[in-house]
Amino acid sequence: MLIVMKPSATEADVGRVADRVRSLGFTPHPIPGAERVAIGITGNKGPIDPVAFDDLPGIAETIRVSQPWKLVSREVKAEDTLVDLGDGVVLGGPRILVMAGPCSVESREQLFEAARAVKAAGATLLRGGAYKPRTSPYEFQGLAEEGLKLLAEAREATGLKVVTEVMDSETLPMVAEYADMLQIGARNMQNFSLLRKVAATGKAVLLKRGPSSTLKEWLMAAEYLLAGGNYRVALCERGIRTFETMTRNTLDLNAVPVLKQLTHLPVVVDPSHGIGLRAHVPAMARAGVAAGADALIVEVHPRPEKALSDGQQSLTPAEFGALMAQVRVIAGALGRPV
Amino acid sequence: MLIVMKPSATEADVGRVADRVRSLGFTPHPIPGAERVAIGITGNKGPIDPVAFDDLPGIAETIRVSQPWKLVSREVKAEDTLVDLGDGVVLGGPRILVMAGPCSVESREQLFEAARAVKAAGATLLRGGAYKPRTSPYEFQGLAEEGLKLLAEAREATGLKVVTEVMDSETLPMVAEYADMLQIGARNMQNFSLLRKVAATGKAVLLKRGPSSTLKEWLMAAEYLLAGGNYRVALCERGIRTFETMTRNTLDLNAVPVLKQLTHLPVVVDPSHGIGLRAHVPAMARAGVAAGADALIVEVHPRPEKALSDGQQSLTPAEFGALMAQVRVIAGALGRPV
Amino acid sequence: MLIVMKPSATEADVGRVADRVRSLGFTPHPIPGAERVAIGITGNKGPIDPVAFDDLPGIAETIRVSQPWKLVSREVKAEDTLVDLGDGVVLGGPRILVMAGPCSVESREQLFEAARAVKAAGATLLRGGAYKPRTSPYEFQGLAEEGLKLLAEAREATGLKVVTEVMDSETLPMVAEYADMLQIGARNMQNFSLLRKVAATGKAVLLKRGPSSTLKEWLMAAEYLLAGGNYRVALCERGIRTFETMTRNTLDLNAVPVLKQLTHLPVVVDPSHGIGLRAHVPAMARAGVAAGADALIVEVHPRPEKALSDGQQSLTPAEFGALMAQVRVIAGALGRPV
Amino acid sequence: MLIVMKPSATEADVGRVADRVRSLGFTPHPIPGAERVAIGITGNKGPIDPVAFDDLPGIAETIRVSQPWKLVSREVKAEDTLVDLGDGVVLGGPRILVMAGPCSVESREQLFEAARAVKAAGATLLRGGAYKPRTSPYEFQGLAEEGLKLLAEAREATGLKVVTEVMDSETLPMVAEYADMLQIGARNMQNFSLLRKVAATGKAVLLKRGPSSTLKEWLMAAEYLLAGGNYRVALCERGIRTFETMTRNTLDLNAVPVLKQLTHLPVVVDPSHGIGLRAHVPAMARAGVAAGADALIVEVHPRPEKALSDGQQSLTPAEFGALMAQVRVIAGALGRPV
Repeated sequence: MLIVMKPSATEADVGRVADRVRSLGFTPHPIPGAERVAIGITGNKGPIDPVAFDDLPGIAETIRVSQPWKLVSREVKAEDTLVDLGDGVVLGGPRILVMAGPCSVESREQLFEAARAVKAAGATLLRGGAYKPRTSPYEFQGLAEEGLKLLAEAREATGLKVVTEVMDSETLPMVAEYADMLQIGARNMQNFSLLRKVAATGKAVLLKRGPSSTLKEWLMAAEYLLAGGNYRVALCERGIRTFETMTRNTLDLNAVPVLKQLTHLPVVVDPSHGIGLRAHVPAMARAGVAAGADALIVEVHPRPEKALSDGQQSLTPAEFGALMAQVRVIAGALGRPV
Repeated sequence: MLIVMKPSATEADVGRVADRVRSLGFTPHPIPGAERVAIGITGNKGPIDPVAFDDLPGIAETIRVSQPWKLVSREVKAEDTLVDLGDGVVLGGPRILVMAGPCSVESREQLFEAARAVKAAGATLLRGGAYKPRTSPYEFQGLAEEGLKLLAEAREATGLKVVTEVMDSETLPMVAEYADMLQIGARNMQNFSLLRKVAATGKAVLLKRGPSSTLKEWLMAAEYLLAGGNYRVALCERGIRTFETMTRNTLDLNAVPVLKQLTHLPVVVDPSHGIGLRAHVPAMARAGVAAGADALIVEVHPRPEKALSDGQQSLTPAEFGALMAQVRVIAGALGRPV
Repeated sequence: MLIVMKPSATEADVGRVADRVRSLGFTPHPIPGAERVAIGITGNKGPIDPVAFDDLPGIAETIRVSQPWKLVSREVKAEDTLVDLGDGVVLGGPRILVMAGPCSVESREQLFEAARAVKAAGATLLRGGAYKPRTSPYEFQGLAEEGLKLLAEAREATGLKVVTEVMDSETLPMVAEYADMLQIGARNMQNFSLLRKVAATGKAVLLKRGPSSTLKEWLMAAEYLLAGGNYRVALCERGIRTFETMTRNTLDLNAVPVLKQLTHLPVVVDPSHGIGLRAHVPAMARAGVAAGADALIVEVHPRPEKALSDGQQSLTPAEFGALMAQVRVIAGALGRPV
Repeated sequence: MLIVMKPSATEADVGRVADRVRSLGFTPHPIPGAERVAIGITGNKGPIDPVAFDDLPGIAETIRVSQPWKLVSREVKAEDTLVDLGDGVVLGGPRILVMAGPCSVESREQLFEAARAVKAAGATLLRGGAYKPRTSPYEFQGLAEEGLKLLAEAREATGLKVVTEVMDSETLPMVAEYADMLQIGARNMQNFSLLRKVAATGKAVLLKRGPSSTLKEWLMAAEYLLAGGNYRVALCERGIRTFETMTRNTLDLNAVPVLKQLTHLPVVVDPSHGIGLRAHVPAMARAGVAAGADALIVEVHPRPEKALSDGQQSLTPAEFGALMAQVRVIAGALGRPV
């Protein structure tokens, strides 16, 4: 259930409602809103009788939440969530953001070359992995803290915000220290222990969809983050696993309009992992924006043919520049700046 | 193998090459081209030694075809195939076509209302099923010839071309008499007997992708049509089957750029079956155009809530008008008229 | 709805019930039973009020059928359907049948060698394709009528019953003339025109599961056959399409117990197409029997390495003999003869 | 590459080979064998020239490993791995083990009732979750350490070994203290940080297949464990995600014979999660054994209808007893004790 407070409700009114929720054995979740506060209730098995709150002042209305996901639902929060990354970089508003950079941080030279190129082309976030989840234990596993330091230096040099993956709780404090936004990778989407700890950092989170995750499971994974007190969450579609083998994954753009209807969280599209073929990344980036994505995340490498990971799907800086031009045209047609 | 003739080659030159191919035990396929003729060769198990043609005049070059699909391949025919439906309606050129209409032809009133609405909004083809493949034998199976006659009347009344599904060889002659373009439905994509007979009609064909067809299998099904002498073929992506249940199918827009690279045939996108949810058809239509589709096929019904089939994914005429406005904006951004 | 007649009901009683069903605008389906007749009703949109039959004699009870499939349901017919192929060969009873033979009929020598070997090892049906649905138009398409004649000769020589695929209505009369059991291939499972015509022949049918068919869709396809008056139907699991590429398909043995609960039709397992790897066919055959299959269908070729189709999954006669020994052991453990 | 030592090779011989491997910049992995030692080499990008070891004594042969998985491969170790859990409980030998118990540990009464029942019926390991990965943050998350203590008490009371899931590195030391075998759940199959830490404990590991994991990815995940020095690993098939919705998952028994060929590790089948429907668990358990599984893991709850998780797929003790009887019959037919 959701309790929506009147705009005139005081902090004490909100506190009394929260106390009442607790006294019933449930958990109150005050939800930030532009004009008024709402309080989500979780922990109940069946519906709660709203009469239990009838005597409390400041309540505008009570809303039954019909889906298993609660705090991520548009039923509970109708307006779009804005994830503010500072310095005017806001994810979820009218402006379409572009996150770009190499799959893995490989060297200062590689990272800076990529960072300067994507900055020049109009990206606002720098992506790059310092810890890499690899199918094989014998493949390049990332530069670890050295990679994080290089990302921080590249941020200093370019003004780009940094989004990078966190793989486990041991390295979480270190990654959180360097990153502006923490990426939870597809393989960790249902690593619930990690979700809880990432929630506790309060850092902005980019939650990638698991390769065979249903939309419901994905929303429930995001629910772990919001239930942990962290509303600064964006969802990133990066391709699902199907029977098709000609593409690396099957970028599921159907997810974009469905999610925009179901949840207030921003939706990001990753055309690089999604289709996994350099030649086709621009077409899928255009399609992602046309479908309603709030941001793109794109792999760019100065020399893709020498990349230590994902070279076959990384764009050159020149290709990325051309993609940005196409993205601007589509976004412009929808009335959104890039 | 493909033998490309010189622009100056005579009909006799082409005939001699075809004879030589036959004398080697293979099948020659003369392929129409704007400036010069090419001859595809099929029936060989391994590579053919080009030396076998060295003594024949008029040959510009011989090209080895590396894929299992031959006649549909861009290796064999680089320029886009234009499927000319008459009266200036050409599929595969710069103009993005829109095919629209009800899932099933239900009545004269319903069909004409839909036809006039989609014509007014800018569609150039009328879709509508007279023979319906239904999962259950107890569901509405279509009006049969009565439906075809209504489609022909609606064509007369509106000037729209007619695309409609053919389900079997028994009804093929009748459907071919009324239709401008024959649709082969998803469930029949690998009905090879039907493919061969449809090829023989010479009618334009809209070949839908089977729900679990790989891109390779789909191209091979189209190869049946071209090998049967019919080059007037378009491919229609209409959603694949995945684990996701929140959408009816998973519209696989990744197929669009991959196909545009592999084949010269036009690519059509069906957002209605693809996502199967009325509210989200416009987003997927926009995304399809942005991904590079040459045409859209959209279900429109005057009263979707009363439709005998697919009501939940059919747009009202008003919704279709709004969709057309969005499609024009995206197409315009790509420099393509609608 | 299902109307179950008393054991004492007369033919006239049954006729009156059928007339009443028709007078209500629905279709009656008298269903064969060992002790009493039942009448399925289809064509209704919602539930039928049983009171409409209250005045008719001979009715034992009326049963509401809750599933979209009717005539194939165990709700409608509790006892197992026995498909009698003559000469004591009965599919669906205690005895586990084995159908075996080459993928394609290639020559008299090949077929007879295979037939004699599988007969000697204990098979009771000979499988072999005369019409082959092939992904590529350039692959071997079968010997057509010549193949059918060879199958009939092999039947004469060995006493094996013949099961072979029918691909279209044009060749149906000819195939039906030669075959004891008509196979509808996976790609044609939802070729509803073909299903209706095959039903009308009254021939026993082996309905293969489409590669991405849900169990519901498969049962509905079988419903087309029963609604067409043909109850001599068996369902054949042959592997579904998943993301796994190391096996040709994913043999879905989960289907076996689920189907045995939902329907009275016999269930057959095809380990050859299911896993597609010769070395592993015996393990999947054993597992199929252990899961409750009523029959197996296995590809056997005298020289798999020279087969014109499916050689990689065909057993040699010696391997088939070893498989039969294993199958007998598992079947024996379940108290079923082979 | 794999270097196989002669049976007569001394420890010093082995040490010299390992030193040479390190001096080349690679990592040596001495692999236990009954009669002779082998040394796997990882860390190389391309093939290693065996000539580099020509001068060292005690080497029988060098073998090139063709697959991306190395230490788990039968190429590297031909004989079956036996995971010895103590007190004569050995996984991977002729005897088929049965692990059984509730999904979650809920109370002392529930656990002991289940444990005594499965022990009486012939199980040798007790399963039960103390930490539960749940799709929703609002569902029962397990009793944590209290659950582990109850498992240890039940082991004392019954002599059953304990297998239980470890979800993260924080609780790993505690879980490892109580468990005989650590289960890595399907959602954590590619949690590489956790894999590395579990490897370091040296505890026996039950590695469940991720719901959309290919066999290759699964073998590579196991490779993380072996590369971390832990060879006491078993693989557990528990159902993959497909389009079918009538069963919870699709138990992929094809995996069993394929894995038994590719790897020396024991293979376990989980029919409970695999099909997810109580009525059909016995059929899938029988089929799993017939396909060649080395063990089963089955959910049993004294009162499934009151279970806090997975009640719909848990067997009652009586049903489990009946299943054991069936399993013994199938195993016996294959010459394996239970």
